[in-house]
Amino acid sequence: LPSKLPDVGTTIFTVMSQLANESKAINLSQGFPGFDCDPYLVDLVTRFMKEGKNQYAPMTGIPELREILSEKTKSLYQVDYNSESEVTIVSGATDALFSAVSAVVQPGDEVILLEPAYDSYAPAVKLSGGVAVFVPLNIPEFSVDWDRVKDAITEKTRVIMVNNPHNPSGYVWTKQDLDTLAGLVRDKNIFIISDEVYEHIIFDGRKHLSLMCHPVLKERTFICGSFGKTFHVTGWKIGYCLAPKPLSIEFRKVHQFVTFSTATPLQFALAEYLKDERKYLDLPGFYQKKRDLFCSGLSETDFKFTPSQGSFFQLVSYKHLSSISDYELSVKMCKEVGVACIPISVFFNQKEDHKILRFCFAKSDSELLEALDKLNSSN
Amino acid sequence: LPSKLPDVGTTIFTVMSQLANESKAINLSQGFPGFDCDPYLVDLVTRFMKEGKNQYAPMTGIPELREILSEKTKSLYQVDYNSESEVTIVSGATDALFSAVSAVVQPGDEVILLEPAYDSYAPAVKLSGGVAVFVPLNIPEFSVDWDRVKDAITEKTRVIMVNNPHNPSGYVWTKQDLDTLAGLVRDKNIFIISDEVYEHIIFDGRKHLSLMCHPVLKERTFICGSFGKTFHVTGWKIGYCLAPKPLSIEFRKVHQFVTFSTATPLQFALAEYLKDERKYLDLPGFYQKKRDLFCSGLSETDFKFTPSQGSFFQLVSYKHLSSISDYELSVKMCKEVGVACIPISVFFNQKEDHKILRFCFAKSDSELLEALDKLNSSN
Ligand SMILES: CSCCC(=O)C(=O)O
Ligand SMILES: CSCCC(=O)C(=O)O
Repeated sequence: LPSKLPDVGTTIFTVMSQLANESKAINLSQGFPGFDCDPYLVDLVTRFMKEGKNQYAPMTGIPELREILSEKTKSLYQVDYNSESEVTIVSGATDALFSAVSAVVQPGDEVILLEPAYDSYAPAVKLSGGVAVFVPLNIPEFSVDWDRVKDAITEKTRVIMVNNPHNPSGYVWTKQDLDTLAGLVRDKNIFIISDEVYEHIIFDGRKHLSLMCHPVLKERTFICGSFGKTFHVTGWKIGYCLAPKPLSIEFRKVHQFVTFSTATPLQFALAEYLKDERKYLDLPGFYQKKRDLFCSGLSETDFKFTPSQGSFFQLVSYKHLSSISDYELSVKMCKEVGVACIPISVFFNQKEDHKILRFCFAKSDSELLEALDKLNSSN
Repeated sequence: LPSKLPDVGTTIFTVMSQLANESKAINLSQGFPGFDCDPYLVDLVTRFMKEGKNQYAPMTGIPELREILSEKTKSLYQVDYNSESEVTIVSGATDALFSAVSAVVQPGDEVILLEPAYDSYAPAVKLSGGVAVFVPLNIPEFSVDWDRVKDAITEKTRVIMVNNPHNPSGYVWTKQDLDTLAGLVRDKNIFIISDEVYEHIIFDGRKHLSLMCHPVLKERTFICGSFGKTFHVTGWKIGYCLAPKPLSIEFRKVHQFVTFSTATPLQFALAEYLKDERKYLDLPGFYQKKRDLFCSGLSETDFKFTPSQGSFFQLVSYKHLSSISDYELSVKMCKEVGVACIPISVFFNQKEDHKILRFCFAKSDSELLEALDKLNSSN
């Protein structure tokens, strides 16, 4: 069987989480909370299961959840998506990203990816017969190099995939980023797929500027979001796609044959849970405390870093050990220090090694302190 | 945005279930149980959620569920799949079918589909750049016309998609079907994708002959299965793919970027539930009673039928009304009689109208009786 994805192995998240388990290391690699969700959310699932909400949900998601999401975008971002025709509930943001790419990218189309890029983007493009065009971000700031994006745009460019807040760096887009992108695509037949799964996890008083907030961008963008990241239930795999009607029509055509629909009782529980709007508001503070705890411990190590602006993640560089690759260092630290992290070279097409590691700080304080302890004593 | 699937509308299941809701009709269209699952299964979900099983499952599924599935295939079919490397848990059989097609079909490859065919097969083939080649089943038996399959095979044939028990007809494969298919593909580089979601729903003492039971077929087949269909939880969207290691490797490469992983607490609940092997054994009897109830009522109508051999479905033909298309009749019956069903023309590429309707009898006895009553009085 000749491979459709010959350059692809097992995703780094599977590899590192497995290695962390085997080494009994503290797992700061894969991005998931090390603590549990609100017990009320679990009670809601039980309630809806007992009420018999165990058969197929509508393909587009239950109306209750679509409506509340539509209200949410209105109140948080003052942007209107029709809950009937422009909101689709899917099986996690991965499904949203995959279905959006599959809905738009035709064989030979070029798709611009900003490197480092989340590892599912390029294979999704490839499976649609598209050509991924890699544009590096400015390192070490991880801001977008708009001149290079401009230079990368050709007649064949069909999609630009963006990620705000950015994984792995935590970079948060500015108004200027939105305006510049809008200027570049305004007169072109280019669509945007915007991965915004960390929209609510953003620090130091910054405000998330969803791409939907720019009218030129909104009309051509698929916004991909995740309830799992926001409500500490990454294992539930409930995400969504917001897009103007003509885009949502094509998105749904594909999605209906990819997974059809998404776990019914979990959708009902989330819809009920979200009736309380405040549920979103505590997240930045909650995660900022964790970032600060982690960063203050890190300052006692030889790692260098700038505090993350958003997301679950903190990058660190390790000039003091620069003879070892980031991949090797991650494996070594997992096995010998007992702390697992992600080498960011895996997010580059050419596996470029910038000697930078990614730590997930979405963990209990005690887990973070224990990890810091290990990192410190290995210095 | 030019469509990737220009010929595709909203799936018939969404259309008919919506129309049934609007018309307050009894919904015998989409294939899902009209009764609830074992309450113990719900208790198990609650238990595992409370134990904190709410974060990402391993990409391939939790080991406990993969192992029990591997044991099951051993005890039910005497066939061995390695639980580590040959069993993958996915987000429903739709995901299994889609990921299998995406893993194998390259642009220009031909994929043989036996018509009538479940509506997700052809779009999945199309999205991979493949060419669907439609071979009609023998109607009205819905057995496979192997001569036509043989004639359809070319140098470019890469996959044959099969469905046993067959949706919509209920046709159940014989040993001879397996042998004939094996003979046709033995010396060729052709893979099989086998949709066996109704494996446990099979009547009149028949035995399900999974394609895995034939050694020549096993080595080239992706078996797609569904816990939702088997345990009355179609809304949970947990399915699986069984395939030899080299095929599973490619399947997983794709699956990890399509949905990555599947609802963790639901996987744990199913794994625990399945420790009791007997859970499978009552299904044929349970559904056969429903088929018999439905068929005995049908015999008092003008519909003609042969009792279904397997699946949730009963086909009927309506020679007495043959001036109306099956699609129109379905809509009319939904609105005027108050019973929704599926026109089987939707399962044909050219929407051929054989004047046949599909009814789902996976409903409570009272719902079935009420539907029969309505059908009778409209005669
Ligand atoms: C789908 S597993 C990966 C989770 C994640 O988003 C990350 O670790 O970057
Ligand atoms: C995924 S919705 C369709 C359910 C089904 O298998 C059918 O009705 O044929």
